[in-house]
Amino acid sequence: MKIGAVEAGGTKFVCAIGDENGQVSEQIKIPTTSPKETMNQVINYFKEQQVEAIGVGTFGPINVNKNSVTYGYVTKTPKPGWSNYDFLGSMKKELNIPISFTTDVNAAGYGEAVQGAGRGKENVLYWTIGTGIGAGYVQNGEFLQGISHPEMGHMLIRQNPNDIYEGHCPFHKNCFEGLAAGPAIEERIGKKAVELDQNDPVWDYIADYAAQACVTATLVLRPDIIIFGGGVIHQEHLLKKIRKHFKEQLNDYVDVPPLEEYIVRIGLNDDAGIKGALLLAAKELS
Amino acid sequence: MKIGAVEAGGTKFVCAIGDENGQVSEQIKIPTTSPKETMNQVINYFKEQQVEAIGVGTFGPINVNKNSVTYGYVTKTPKPGWSNYDFLGSMKKELNIPISFTTDVNAAGYGEAVQGAGRGKENVLYWTIGTGIGAGYVQNGEFLQGISHPEMGHMLIRQNPNDIYEGHCPFHKNCFEGLAAGPAIEERIGKKAVELDQNDPVWDYIADYAAQACVTATLVLRPDIIIFGGGVIHQEHLLKKIRKHFKEQLNDYVDVPPLEEYIVRIGLNDDAGIKGALLLAAKELS
Repeated sequence: MKIGAVEAGGTKFVCAIGDENGQVSEQIKIPTTSPKETMNQVINYFKEQQVEAIGVGTFGPINVNKNSVTYGYVTKTPKPGWSNYDFLGSMKKELNIPISFTTDVNAAGYGEAVQGAGRGKENVLYWTIGTGIGAGYVQNGEFLQGISHPEMGHMLIRQNPNDIYEGHCPFHKNCFEGLAAGPAIEERIGKKAVELDQNDPVWDYIADYAAQACVTATLVLRPDIIIFGGGVIHQEHLLKKIRKHFKEQLNDYVDVPPLEEYIVRIGLNDDAGIKGALLLAAKELS
Repeated sequence: MKIGAVEAGGTKFVCAIGDENGQVSEQIKIPTTSPKETMNQVINYFKEQQVEAIGVGTFGPINVNKNSVTYGYVTKTPKPGWSNYDFLGSMKKELNIPISFTTDVNAAGYGEAVQGAGRGKENVLYWTIGTGIGAGYVQNGEFLQGISHPEMGHMLIRQNPNDIYEGHCPFHKNCFEGLAAGPAIEERIGKKAVELDQNDPVWDYIADYAAQACVTATLVLRPDIIIFGGGVIHQEHLLKKIRKHFKEQLNDYVDVPPLEEYIVRIGLNDDAGIKGALLLAAKELS
């Protein structure tokens, strides 16, 4: 099968061609400008390639409720022109093929659940900590969603009393994303996160906050595995610190798998989103 | 149909006879002593009544994983004799009928989802704040569970700096249950919660904590409705206070229904658990 995948981000769209096994044969990058300009390029690329289905994982918030008249729309976003834009409809109008539509983090979570670190597990929680923080939860191949998709990155967590940073979130100041996403780390320290010594207490704060998010997710969802991806997680030492805090915080209240198998690093790295989108497109055809 | 229901609590078991519509025709109470003594009475009652199916909602933690060899067991509990007790198996051995087995709070949540305040909603979150705090989540008639059932009552929340109480939870001290369950309120104030003036700041703390739990649940699950039951919620003023804190904390980050329809009081009151268990038993037969 010849399948398309879109990973739509705030600065660029990655469009790929691949197969039903998640194998990518080629990909291009398109800058994220206005919806019309960007989407025309996306649509033309897939028209030329004559794919059989497309999987889309996009920045949000989006409407993922298939019963809604605005299913497939971007909802409110600060990105100029994209609020209330009919993302899926604009593609459907020009490309008469099945298109799967979900959040960027759901697509990456799906990739991880099927082919990455969550392979073989039924209940897979995927977190990304990068420019923002988000999560996708896959249960037996289906996404958890209610009236819309999760927005777990904005969980309210307990700030370490030694961490005097006020927080970066325009809605909640010191929620999880407001304290632990890349921009929050960099505003706090006045330099790039990669320049920060791994023994710096800021890493311990970040690990504390990520561990709290894992404790809450454990108590609410009871996943088989919690997978971390995203730029901030490139710090190799961070996973160990997260596990240490998690163990102290949960205090054995519920049984979880051994922590080295429970809280783990992403398996597919930067390919998780595109592979996930390909696999979701293939699912539309099956 | 003639159906049985069990609401198994730490001090008593309520056993009821009813029908597939959740209508109770009679019920008895059996003290919770040793598993053998209590369960013999439960089993004899249903043998005499010749019911077609039974729904059980029980204190936990329990094993709800149908693929597990210890499905239907109580797992670790401080209640003498009940740890690793084969609750479901002891009933199955004597009563050769379908038996539905879930947590007390799931059963009550199911009752609320089908016939109570959550009627007609797809994604129903039910919280109980009483001697302990627990939650059940029903999506299109199915319970959310991963490797086990949720234990949302132990979420880590932010303690109000004016609330100097250290917390009541033996595992986490000042988690949600540790700060906001009945025993925590009473230990904090040295008297019964019902004796506390409704303008006392302690109620504001409790509402703050319940609101935080609702914000987190909203961001993780995106429910259609959040229903509160349990003894503490008998305080009529509390729901309003919870909504006020919730609005401030979420700060319109995601869309939710109007708060008077989103965060609501239990519809079936003390009958939610038994009605839910009857409806779950009926589902086993359908």
